[in-house]
Amino acid sequence: MFEGAELGRKVSKEDYHAQLPELRTALVEAQLALRESNIPVIVVVAGVDGAGRGEVVNRLHEWLDARGLEVQSYWNETDEERERPYWWRFWRSLPPRGNIGILFGAWYTAPMSRRGLDDLDDPAFDAEMRRIADFERILSEDQALIIKFWFHLSEKEQKKRLKELAEDPRSRWRMAPKVHRLEKKEVAYRKTLQVAERTIRETDSGVAPWYLIESTDRRYRDLTVARTLLTALESRLKTPQPDIEPPASHAPHLPDAPSAQVTLLDHVDLSRALAKQDYKACLDEYQGKLNKLIWQAYRECVSTVMVFEGWDAAGKGGAVRRLTQAMDARLYRVIPVAAPTDEERAHHYLWRFWRQIPRAGTVTIFDRSWYGRVLVERVEGFATEKEWRRGYHEINEFEEQLHEHGIVLCKFWLHISKEEQLERFKAREETPYKQYKITEEDWRNREKWDDYKAAVNEMVMRTSTEFSEWTLIPATDKRYARVEVLRTACERLERVLREGLN
Amino acid sequence: MFEGAELGRKVSKEDYHAQLPELRTALVEAQLALRESNIPVIVVVAGVDGAGRGEVVNRLHEWLDARGLEVQSYWNETDEERERPYWWRFWRSLPPRGNIGILFGAWYTAPMSRRGLDDLDDPAFDAEMRRIADFERILSEDQALIIKFWFHLSEKEQKKRLKELAEDPRSRWRMAPKVHRLEKKEVAYRKTLQVAERTIRETDSGVAPWYLIESTDRRYRDLTVARTLLTALESRLKTPQPDIEPPASHAPHLPDAPSAQVTLLDHVDLSRALAKQDYKACLDEYQGKLNKLIWQAYRECVSTVMVFEGWDAAGKGGAVRRLTQAMDARLYRVIPVAAPTDEERAHHYLWRFWRQIPRAGTVTIFDRSWYGRVLVERVEGFATEKEWRRGYHEINEFEEQLHEHGIVLCKFWLHISKEEQLERFKAREETPYKQYKITEEDWRNREKWDDYKAAVNEMVMRTSTEFSEWTLIPATDKRYARVEVLRTACERLERVLREGLN
Repeated sequence: MFEGAELGRKVSKEDYHAQLPELRTALVEAQLALRESNIPVIVVVAGVDGAGRGEVVNRLHEWLDARGLEVQSYWNETDEERERPYWWRFWRSLPPRGNIGILFGAWYTAPMSRRGLDDLDDPAFDAEMRRIADFERILSEDQALIIKFWFHLSEKEQKKRLKELAEDPRSRWRMAPKVHRLEKKEVAYRKTLQVAERTIRETDSGVAPWYLIESTDRRYRDLTVARTLLTALESRLKTPQPDIEPPASHAPHLPDAPSAQVTLLDHVDLSRALAKQDYKACLDEYQGKLNKLIWQAYRECVSTVMVFEGWDAAGKGGAVRRLTQAMDARLYRVIPVAAPTDEERAHHYLWRFWRQIPRAGTVTIFDRSWYGRVLVERVEGFATEKEWRRGYHEINEFEEQLHEHGIVLCKFWLHISKEEQLERFKAREETPYKQYKITEEDWRNREKWDDYKAAVNEMVMRTSTEFSEWTLIPATDKRYARVEVLRTACERLERVLREGLN
Repeated sequence: MFEGAELGRKVSKEDYHAQLPELRTALVEAQLALRESNIPVIVVVAGVDGAGRGEVVNRLHEWLDARGLEVQSYWNETDEERERPYWWRFWRSLPPRGNIGILFGAWYTAPMSRRGLDDLDDPAFDAEMRRIADFERILSEDQALIIKFWFHLSEKEQKKRLKELAEDPRSRWRMAPKVHRLEKKEVAYRKTLQVAERTIRETDSGVAPWYLIESTDRRYRDLTVARTLLTALESRLKTPQPDIEPPASHAPHLPDAPSAQVTLLDHVDLSRALAKQDYKACLDEYQGKLNKLIWQAYRECVSTVMVFEGWDAAGKGGAVRRLTQAMDARLYRVIPVAAPTDEERAHHYLWRFWRQIPRAGTVTIFDRSWYGRVLVERVEGFATEKEWRRGYHEINEFEEQLHEHGIVLCKFWLHISKEEQLERFKAREETPYKQYKITEEDWRNREKWDDYKAAVNEMVMRTSTEFSEWTLIPATDKRYARVEVLRTACERLERVLREGLN
């Protein structure tokens, strides 16, 4: 694979200086146009030791406008990062739309160096690569322009370069603390290339291509990087990212008879109720239990994420409060999902949920959530069909990562009938301190009941996975619903604390 | 001081339930009005052990709308926090405008418990209290509404309550890991009260008052907190925070003669230059030196913050690049200061700089900075006179905290004459890849040269402190300026790494 990057290509000093002014002008112009676009640009910088990744980044710093340019390296993982799923650190460092983020190694460093050290076998490594390819596809479907550079040196050239570096008092080779030094001794050249080849093969996609850059001649290297970046920027600015067809619905087409169109929601028994005299005892029992479990989870650093979705006026707020009453106020946060801020809008729609992922041992309760993508955004047309269709996969992937990190996930759909909703709307309008809860929008949403119902059904079907099942709560009787939420949360936590996530 | 909170006040169950609906309605209405305002609300919750701080917060969670409500506790300091100045963790957790942040203990916990354990003596403790009072004043001048509750129990009542808690299987007393348990044994009741009295005395200001809440009767306690919060909210929403007069300028009024009006800037020798043949050698020398120093700083976890201010076209960008050329790209970030995002606008103007403070051992270079407050915002009228006058103190306070944390601070003003600027503007318009750097705005700013000059002079005078001096760089000759910046940065870093900050 790397023969094409050992051709001895070079650029003379004269050619270099002749080309530079025009190139720099074009780069800065493209960057200005980019700023007005909705495209985040991700440049991954990777390669063999000694190829000069740092030099290239310094050069780009020189040639590009510093406004809208960010450089990220991933040294020194922090405890705030360790306490969250592995990908949290990458999500938090993604550039916003209109900006260029240069990422040293990015999500490639860890799996590549682990494979090099035989800490990952091939199947495990391939699984990591598939996750990366998937992540990059998700970003690119959200308009990201992803450009990945692999800086190559031949074995002989590398040897020479490392010798130079060892003699240069300014080089990272000499200066960096041991932990960040080049890893020549640990992973031999051939092994590195083997791993690199496999990496590139598995993750070189149309939406996130790898560019192999011959790095023997510094002028050639830097000019080629700049030209490649420029061409990619210009062509994306001219032609928007083609939409990739999302997987079609695998829902069968139903015969036109009511009995054939029964849905999951229709199976929820809305008559379930709890007698008043039993309520207090149940509430006490499960709140007491939950209190203990939440403290135990805190001590064992197990985090919990709870998601509440449901019809307007189904009683989400009340159910949430019965949960939080049982918890120490220092251990939970309630996140009511409202309109995104402009920083949030400048990222993939999942970004604002990633940033709320709790630290180890605490509870985050989402009152509405990322499921807005496939519910309100779908029904109201705020997301295109392609966007919300992609949503199922994106959400499953997101939740799988929470699960893999050991986060307990509870998802509740609070279900009531259309008639019950009407009565509650009316009641809310009559209770002074509840009036603020009922708006024009609620009445408008109500008119689209059937569309929402279809969306809910598809959501539950597509996102109830083995690690993240939906619990449909019959909520006609508020007492029943609240106790059921508490009971489910206890059950789930208890199981995880006893057996661990599987 | 606490006699007034041992009066045996209580509220009967009937009175409680009779008052509640009206109170809740009013609270939610006030919160809705708050959302449209530019007021961030900070509620500090403190008090003796066993008084039920957590219960109160859970109650507020129940009575208030979760949208726009945030609760912060300060358990488990993270390494991302430890690597930054002490106040960083508080800045990052301040509620945005229109929101209510409930802070457990907030900035009071640490100094109070250290005083209780005799880890701080009275003068040191008072110094902490003065810093807190100052911080709260700074926030309140920026529209924050600050309400501080101290929950009190008599000694006898506390004893009883702690016994109850010890028997209650759900209580924090029983459930929390040892490190978070109530500290009865460590700090005796009397000592706590002594410290609390001193705390309240020193920090009970008109803008951030303390409310002593008798906490024996839970219904009285919760209703009183809610009423107090409501009254404070309502009265602030009705009457905006009165402006506090900032300190007047201590600049003397100058006689009307040019020779009497010489300024600091006039003393900068703009004829300083460096011969071309010397430039390369100097650049090499200082870049090599800086490279070593930055690595050493990285190893010793010493962070550096550099601020570049100067006339348009004075050569800030070029000087910054000569610095970054000398550094490994993984060790520095350049922050060009542009328009704030809406999340940034929703906080005190210093918030967006606090969020950029580097982790230990790295370098952050601000191309323009917080000094915009007393330069462009002053001259262009974006800040009121009161706002920019307060700015000097706010900035000095901010920089003192960076200094105390051991951060090396370099501040450069790049100075050129008005004539030199004109020539550079013209040259920029003729170089294709520099045209983007020159805008209408630059020409407009130029017309206000004298206003800017006055602002720069006052800025340098008021914010050159012993720990954070300005370096005025004669920048007519770009070579001279760049080397001078490098030399100064080396000198400063070298001294700190040799002697430590004093």
